[in-house]
Amino acid sequence: MIEENNSMPGCPVARGLESVGDAWSMLILRDAHAGMARFDQFRKNLGIAPTMLTKRLAALTDAGLLEKRSYSERPPRDEYVLTDAGRDFLPVLMMIGAWAQRNCSGDRLARYIDDETGQEIQPMAIDAVTGAQLGSRPMHMGLPPEAS
Amino acid sequence: MIEENNSMPGCPVARGLESVGDAWSMLILRDAHAGMARFDQFRKNLGIAPTMLTKRLAALTDAGLLEKRSYSERPPRDEYVLTDAGRDFLPVLMMIGAWAQRNCSGDRLARYIDDETGQEIQPMAIDAVTGAQLGSRPMHMGLPPEAS
Repeated sequence: MIEENNSMPGCPVARGLESVGDAWSMLILRDAHAGMARFDQFRKNLGIAPTMLTKRLAALTDAGLLEKRSYSERPPRDEYVLTDAGRDFLPVLMMIGAWAQRNCSGDRLARYIDDETGQEIQPMAIDAVTGAQLGSRPMHMGLPPEAS
Repeated sequence: MIEENNSMPGCPVARGLESVGDAWSMLILRDAHAGMARFDQFRKNLGIAPTMLTKRLAALTDAGLLEKRSYSERPPRDEYVLTDAGRDFLPVLMMIGAWAQRNCSGDRLARYIDDETGQEIQPMAIDAVTGAQLGSRPMHMGLPPEAS
């Protein structure tokens, strides 16, 4: 994780990366979206050291992307399930995957397939207001109106 | 960065994170999209240690997101400019920012404003094939057809 020690105050990218700004956190979220919830599932699938996994799960829980839920009283055992904010992170993961599919040539990467149409999904980010692809029109950063 | 030591072979998310899977790398890319190119610009804006910055710039150059370009012969000085793959990463950054705007309440975060309309941009990720918002329809992972 990173501290907000850069000179773009209120930068949403920096703020988002405070919550999920390392690869392990994002891979844990990916696995959670694939249905995993238990410590051993994450540990085995990721090949991550237990101490590191404990830290990352705690950080993601603190940041509000995962929620701890007990699934056994005796012995006491918790699982980690996605919150609304965690579920809302799926498009970011898919955009990272789509970027790799376009730009990391030489690798055979899996594709996202729509269950119903059987077609490959083509992730694209747009501005819901204008419908234009993000980055295709000039823009700037500004503080929200209610903050004036 | 993370090694591909997890049990989802060909996972595009894992592959993408090998290139950009830490917060510093993403903040350097953010600054590059904001027009910065020189070592001292990144260093000052991010408050990052020079040794760390050198490492991250080299990794992003190796991964093909930045390109080194000389801007002074004497003394010899390089700057770092976005490649096509680097420019293609902007939507990912904006999706991370938009996620934070929606989910990190309590912070006053800057907004993306369309220059022409003056309206706040609402980043949304869709499947260009069906037009549906990513995550709103059932899907699965599959290998690309040419790989059979």
